[in-house]
Amino acid sequence: MSSGSSSKIEPPDARFAERARARQRELTKPPGSLGKLETIASRLASIQRQDRPTSFGRRVVVFTANHGVVAEGVSPYPAEVTAQMVANFAAGGAAINAIARAAQADVVVVDVGVSPGTRNLAREPAMTEDEMKGALERGRAEARRARAEGMALVGLGEMGIGNTTAASAVTAALTGLPPSRVTGPGTGLDEAGRRRKVEVIERALALHQLPPREPLEVLRSVGGLEIAALAGLSLEAAAQRLAIVVDGFIASAAFAVAFELEPLVKDYAFFSHLSTEPGHRALVDFLGDDPLLDLGLRLGEGTGAALAMPVLGAAVAAHNEMATFAEAGVSGKT
Amino acid sequence: MSSGSSSKIEPPDARFAERARARQRELTKPPGSLGKLETIASRLASIQRQDRPTSFGRRVVVFTANHGVVAEGVSPYPAEVTAQMVANFAAGGAAINAIARAAQADVVVVDVGVSPGTRNLAREPAMTEDEMKGALERGRAEARRARAEGMALVGLGEMGIGNTTAASAVTAALTGLPPSRVTGPGTGLDEAGRRRKVEVIERALALHQLPPREPLEVLRSVGGLEIAALAGLSLEAAAQRLAIVVDGFIASAAFAVAFELEPLVKDYAFFSHLSTEPGHRALVDFLGDDPLLDLGLRLGEGTGAALAMPVLGAAVAAHNEMATFAEAGVSGKT
Repeated sequence: MSSGSSSKIEPPDARFAERARARQRELTKPPGSLGKLETIASRLASIQRQDRPTSFGRRVVVFTANHGVVAEGVSPYPAEVTAQMVANFAAGGAAINAIARAAQADVVVVDVGVSPGTRNLAREPAMTEDEMKGALERGRAEARRARAEGMALVGLGEMGIGNTTAASAVTAALTGLPPSRVTGPGTGLDEAGRRRKVEVIERALALHQLPPREPLEVLRSVGGLEIAALAGLSLEAAAQRLAIVVDGFIASAAFAVAFELEPLVKDYAFFSHLSTEPGHRALVDFLGDDPLLDLGLRLGEGTGAALAMPVLGAAVAAHNEMATFAEAGVSGKT
Repeated sequence: MSSGSSSKIEPPDARFAERARARQRELTKPPGSLGKLETIASRLASIQRQDRPTSFGRRVVVFTANHGVVAEGVSPYPAEVTAQMVANFAAGGAAINAIARAAQADVVVVDVGVSPGTRNLAREPAMTEDEMKGALERGRAEARRARAEGMALVGLGEMGIGNTTAASAVTAALTGLPPSRVTGPGTGLDEAGRRRKVEVIERALALHQLPPREPLEVLRSVGGLEIAALAGLSLEAAAQRLAIVVDGFIASAAFAVAFELEPLVKDYAFFSHLSTEPGHRALVDFLGDDPLLDLGLRLGEGTGAALAMPVLGAAVAAHNEMATFAEAGVSGKT
């Protein structure tokens, strides 16, 4: 199974990171005192291949899809909420609209399967191969569009009632952890509901008998159309040398599929926040990274990604705008 | 010893927080899914006594002062750096200038003792009573000015070579922890330098014999002019119903003095970030709070406070701008 036509991902150019670190040692502050902001700035320099990186333009791409697995009673919200939320996004009334506006980011909403949605992963593969390839390509197209429209940061957003079930199944399959460890309340299941959700995922994994290290097989069998689109977006964004801002649980599950296909994608990614969904910690550990923010979010839509964009912006501002010791006539260490 | 003329601090109005929480349950998101952003918005509503809080205008007040204790070899940078950095602030070339610009915040720099500076706390009280009262009042005046100029958020910033020594001494005196536990490398001491700094603080505490629960005596004996000004700013900002955004270690030490004088000040405060200076964790535990960000910063100047302001802004944006389930025609839980 192939991930379809994909541009090649090259590693970020380490020479720019090195020059960025050299500049940071000259800026009017104790060495290293801006902590992760310094790492962010040097990584963006190497991703963008420029000495003065930029954090503008900022965009969150929100892929939306439904999930047949909702028939198994895995969500407290009805499936029609997905379409209702698409209308809410269009009207600018959702959390991602407000938080992205505050972050000076735009929001692009792409329906990749609100109707018909992802198939019921508890009873059949979540997607046919053609459906999966189509969704991956929809994601890739958004990365090319983001590049063409001058974006520097691309946030991974999603909305789809039932998609924490798919993300938990993907997480269990990729990490080998038991579903009970990586399945949480999602939008608000009680403990009985969560146990039912765990059983649905266990049944799905038993049904599909996924071989290890086959990320596309995992994606096709227990993923979702928006999850596939986010994986495609991640792969092509890295190929286009855009910085990827990963959101929470669902986005990280999609990103983990991309990472298993092409580990270099991680060199282009910033993990924005740690979700309270228990599977997210497992994914973050699997990916070997440490999110920037931990604010108790569990909403999705790309809200955590949008929230982290001003942090990246502050890192860039400090890096580009601060005076050096020599420029400012400030004495160094004695 | 009195903290001088002070406006009375009244508690935030809990009715606004309650109405904010009621609104949050109606917004188009699973209940509680915006985590700390929801708490921030409801706290700002109760602080500002309005149903739709605001995060603009945003200001960081940077008090600057020198420290006689630098004569004891507690900093790797010479004392003249304080005045040089004041010039750097004025020219817009310091980290706080860049990060505040990115956060849409202005920066006010107030020299409260660059020359002559705070006295050498290892040999005599850091301030006379008149000097301390003057610095507290300078801080209060900045809170009144911030209110008059339409500010909503006031960040606590400082710059002063040697001031981590004063902050560690204040922290040890207020918390009762040994200086070795709350003293770190500051701007970049090696381990031998850090041990010397611990000994200087131990000598100072032995000299001054500070009684427990006497925050003004602690401030006057081992504090600093900018620390006193930040304590005054905090007290008056709360009285003026402004939200206080506490920065890292030095600002938290100043805030802890204000808190010991008037615990209600904490109801107006947001702790922006956790510094890597070891004393900051001790102060945060002492104050019983949990900072919003943990990005490995240890610069001061109010940089962490400025960095957190867009997070407060995102919280307010979501609260004020999101549609309710009824407005958006989105179905609730089944």
